[in-house]
Amino acid sequence: MEMSWEQSVTYSINTVYLLFSAYLVFVMQLGFAMLCAGSVRAKNAMNIMLTNVVDAVVGSISYYLFGFAFAFVAGITSGSIAERTQFSAYLVFSFFLSGFVYPVVAHWVWSSSGWLSTSSTNPLFASGAIDFAGSGVVHMVGAVAGFWGALIEGPRVGRFDAFGKPVPMRGHNATLVVLGTFLLWFGWFGFNPGSFDKILVAYPSTTNQGNWTAIGRTAVTTTLAGSTAGIVTLFGRRLLVGHWDALDVCNGVLGGFVAITSGCAVVEPWAAIVCGFFSAWVLIGLNIVVMKLNFDDPLEATQLHGGCGAWGLIFTGLFAKEEFVIQAYEAGDTSVVRPYGLFMGGGWGLLGCQVIELLVIVGWVSVTMGPIFYAQHRLGILRISVEEEIAGLDISSHGGYAYNTHQEENQPRFYADYMRMHGHS
Amino acid sequence: MEMSWEQSVTYSINTVYLLFSAYLVFVMQLGFAMLCAGSVRAKNAMNIMLTNVVDAVVGSISYYLFGFAFAFVAGITSGSIAERTQFSAYLVFSFFLSGFVYPVVAHWVWSSSGWLSTSSTNPLFASGAIDFAGSGVVHMVGAVAGFWGALIEGPRVGRFDAFGKPVPMRGHNATLVVLGTFLLWFGWFGFNPGSFDKILVAYPSTTNQGNWTAIGRTAVTTTLAGSTAGIVTLFGRRLLVGHWDALDVCNGVLGGFVAITSGCAVVEPWAAIVCGFFSAWVLIGLNIVVMKLNFDDPLEATQLHGGCGAWGLIFTGLFAKEEFVIQAYEAGDTSVVRPYGLFMGGGWGLLGCQVIELLVIVGWVSVTMGPIFYAQHRLGILRISVEEEIAGLDISSHGGYAYNTHQEENQPRFYADYMRMHGHS
Amino acid sequence: MEMSWEQSVTYSINTVYLLFSAYLVFVMQLGFAMLCAGSVRAKNAMNIMLTNVVDAVVGSISYYLFGFAFAFVAGITSGSIAERTQFSAYLVFSFFLSGFVYPVVAHWVWSSSGWLSTSSTNPLFASGAIDFAGSGVVHMVGAVAGFWGALIEGPRVGRFDAFGKPVPMRGHNATLVVLGTFLLWFGWFGFNPGSFDKILVAYPSTTNQGNWTAIGRTAVTTTLAGSTAGIVTLFGRRLLVGHWDALDVCNGVLGGFVAITSGCAVVEPWAAIVCGFFSAWVLIGLNIVVMKLNFDDPLEATQLHGGCGAWGLIFTGLFAKEEFVIQAYEAGDTSVVRPYGLFMGGGWGLLGCQVIELLVIVGWVSVTMGPIFYAQHRLGILRISVEEEIAGLDISSHGGYAYNTHQEENQPRFYADYMRMHGHS
Repeated sequence: MEMSWEQSVTYSINTVYLLFSAYLVFVMQLGFAMLCAGSVRAKNAMNIMLTNVVDAVVGSISYYLFGFAFAFVAGITSGSIAERTQFSAYLVFSFFLSGFVYPVVAHWVWSSSGWLSTSSTNPLFASGAIDFAGSGVVHMVGAVAGFWGALIEGPRVGRFDAFGKPVPMRGHNATLVVLGTFLLWFGWFGFNPGSFDKILVAYPSTTNQGNWTAIGRTAVTTTLAGSTAGIVTLFGRRLLVGHWDALDVCNGVLGGFVAITSGCAVVEPWAAIVCGFFSAWVLIGLNIVVMKLNFDDPLEATQLHGGCGAWGLIFTGLFAKEEFVIQAYEAGDTSVVRPYGLFMGGGWGLLGCQVIELLVIVGWVSVTMGPIFYAQHRLGILRISVEEEIAGLDISSHGGYAYNTHQEENQPRFYADYMRMHGHS
Repeated sequence: MEMSWEQSVTYSINTVYLLFSAYLVFVMQLGFAMLCAGSVRAKNAMNIMLTNVVDAVVGSISYYLFGFAFAFVAGITSGSIAERTQFSAYLVFSFFLSGFVYPVVAHWVWSSSGWLSTSSTNPLFASGAIDFAGSGVVHMVGAVAGFWGALIEGPRVGRFDAFGKPVPMRGHNATLVVLGTFLLWFGWFGFNPGSFDKILVAYPSTTNQGNWTAIGRTAVTTTLAGSTAGIVTLFGRRLLVGHWDALDVCNGVLGGFVAITSGCAVVEPWAAIVCGFFSAWVLIGLNIVVMKLNFDDPLEATQLHGGCGAWGLIFTGLFAKEEFVIQAYEAGDTSVVRPYGLFMGGGWGLLGCQVIELLVIVGWVSVTMGPIFYAQHRLGILRISVEEEIAGLDISSHGGYAYNTHQEENQPRFYADYMRMHGHS
Repeated sequence: MEMSWEQSVTYSINTVYLLFSAYLVFVMQLGFAMLCAGSVRAKNAMNIMLTNVVDAVVGSISYYLFGFAFAFVAGITSGSIAERTQFSAYLVFSFFLSGFVYPVVAHWVWSSSGWLSTSSTNPLFASGAIDFAGSGVVHMVGAVAGFWGALIEGPRVGRFDAFGKPVPMRGHNATLVVLGTFLLWFGWFGFNPGSFDKILVAYPSTTNQGNWTAIGRTAVTTTLAGSTAGIVTLFGRRLLVGHWDALDVCNGVLGGFVAITSGCAVVEPWAAIVCGFFSAWVLIGLNIVVMKLNFDDPLEATQLHGGCGAWGLIFTGLFAKEEFVIQAYEAGDTSVVRPYGLFMGGGWGLLGCQVIELLVIVGWVSVTMGPIFYAQHRLGILRISVEEEIAGLDISSHGGYAYNTHQEENQPRFYADYMRMHGHS
């Protein structure tokens, strides 16, 4: 088959764009591994990094075999139940979550035959839910699963004292948290703008001019939502807690990214700032609530991915702009009439779909993953023993600690052996 | 508006190029955070990372709102005054520096209406200053501000003994310094070659063929200047100090990058090697001088960004090649006659402008930022107390240390509580 | 010279593709530095990072001057002899290895006038060896050199006890190993798919349509081989050793990448899974063998780059697909008849060339590098003294340790000085 010049150019540009975006998405796995490692105590660093590297390799293979990239979903859930869960339990729940629970939601929202999809022939409320890169499909699914896991397991030993007062249990390395956050930021540029899988069309028409404008705007909205959420979280927490904490900025940034992931392609940059502002308060507020409820999620995954993900779905229902919705979902065909954001004059159709996606995800993931975690709990194969938890997972299950800074001290005892073996005096 | 096929292709390619370059520039924020964190003592790691993440998020928002990307300038300055400055003082000076002092310089040199600009209708000496990606506009501005801050604050407690002899005060983590340096290297590929914001033109002409040749050359000159400076610094310091130090290579590489940032687009690769060679000696020499003067800049930012930045401006005035200047600044219109590098036969016009840019930056930043730092100093809101400095900023201002490796030791006391709460024997 | 529009577009796209691929290859230097640093003991971290940064800067300069990118080869070798080698010995062997031994092999296999090349006018067995991105040329060359270095130096002090039983000598920081592995993964996307230096051709024909399909497939095969090898190594080692180790996944992933590097462009994705599966067992098996032989390679470089590199050459001879070989090596000219993989029905010609490349590399590198290491050994300039080894290279040769976490403890003694100097009471 001979290609036209236009097709050659189009395939080449789109391949470059798609591949480099995919490479950036891969960096998110690294970012998540570093964020998780830094957020747990040193004695559990190997354990959580193991779940991250397994997510990366199994995710790559299954994406080729089945077309589903589930790695992030199971990674979010791993964060919620970190530092106290058996590795075999992780293998079981992540298989079920990513092999069944998540693909069903992805089908509903993203497949052209999904009942919540914008591209089905008869979309719900003539609209369908807009969840462009997955505030709901990816982040909420992982977070709701993690919520049930963390709730059923209960808090880590020592997380709350006998009076229910939280005891600080900081991660072992804030530098890794900053590193992981920035790498996730870098990778999110592949995730959100890269969810447009094409930038150029071979034969542009009046309506379909290609996606470069929308892609550029998506990069901007993503950056603005994360940045705004980061700075608002910093100042908000300063007001509440009394000190300036770099980790607050990191969590805020990630919360803003999670929230904008749904609407990044269909909102104005100013709206992304609004999105980020409220993401920060959703995160701050939920963190206060879970502390009061003695709920322990070491990575704040429930609050961050669940809370900000839910806010992101609502936000899109409020602020999606007609022109951008048509651009992203109707290939720019302006003859189409579609619902869009309520605050932008687009009626209740889209917002209704967004709320339904939110509720359906909470319900579906709860009824599927809740029993999985509960059954494992009852069978005693979910949580590690108290002794193991205090010693740390790395030494009990993974053959050694992540850090070996004092190993040298043991070496003088080999010195005599060595000198004798090699014939030294 | 319907686009022509040529325009569609051009916008698509340029968008891909611009976005991925911008993503790399973002990585510089991460690199700088890691470099800074590793270069300070562990007790101040959170503090300096906080300034880096705030730079990143505020820089992103202000770039959208005002069109100025000031984050790097304020980051350089933060390095000079690290480990002894109040966070509130950072907020004040960085607001003033990046909101006023830096934009004025950027306007003078880069705006088409700037008096030092090459693209003004009546450029200085018929030339204007060539500061392609900002050896002067970015690096010197940040460094001169940092110089005044560090000078007014004075050295860190214990940096020089009672006889004025420097006491080694190494950063806490050389691995982070190497990580940060390589990430900055990676990001510089976005910063220098990416400062060509277009790679293709929709309707190429005899004179304007697009920028792919110049972009490739810019990547090469950047790499060569940094690499040469790195290896020369290694051997130079080996001669002077007597040991091989990986951190010397790191600092040398960064010095070379700072220097070539001005002329990267308009010099031959061999000239970039010359640039790097002298950058190394500028850095080595200034480091000796500041030690003698008991000047303490924990990140060597004054020497590196200021000294090598100044050398970079001069270097461009000496080695800029006519053909490349026309290519970069006149869209390849060879009918234009322009001054270029003195050593390349281009006369004194360009070199004059470069020297004037250098002097003007020193003067302008000194008269604006000097009083800011001095006023804060006199008001007692610049430097932290000696007690706070010895304890470290992280514990006094940021709620805790970056590293919590020994936290586990405290946990047995929760063990009894936990067992009682959960009904264990 | 005026360009046609087609040429302008082609140069622009290919420049973007080539530059960003090159940037990713650069990231491999960072990944290797982090992997190496984390894999050695803390007291030698500066030493091994120094070799990595020197590789990066000298590699960049020599690539410009001589056209050879030898940095990775010498880096692999440095891993084998880590923690016990004089830095001056590194300078000598890496100069000889990368300036002479490696370029000869690269010429044989990759130059159009090389006797093993597929593009010579009269290729061996009418085929030539297929080593697309260098399983043999890069990885085996470095590993065979490292094998001789490690063998001649002998194991690190204390690595095996008086009875020849291995004593665990874990690297000091597993987080850095994970970081390095993921960064190498990221960079490998530049290395393998980027070895197609063009993605678009200016005037496509029936046979030559450009490389976007092959490039996409190469990214997929690379990912699948690494991922499969990672997960198989995890479960394989779990069966053998009894615990789940994230570092096994990391080593497995890298082994899979090394193996697929030869055939990445010419095999089906399912074959890449086969490649990765056997890579894992090659690595696991060789690690058992070298332990029994008391051979000590701190980075497992001999086993990983040598063993998996050799397997990769054989694999390509078995699984290369006719269509893809023609696409990658004959610009898609289907009138050409070429040998291809034995198991794909392509006869023995290609496999013969692959085996010959393997044997020739082992022989050539052994007869050149073996004597170099042996001579240095006899002259007493190869290995450091036992005392130096126990103290660590960083303190003896590089001016200080990589980590300075307890420096603060020394500071109170400066407190009195400081107070006196500044006139405090």
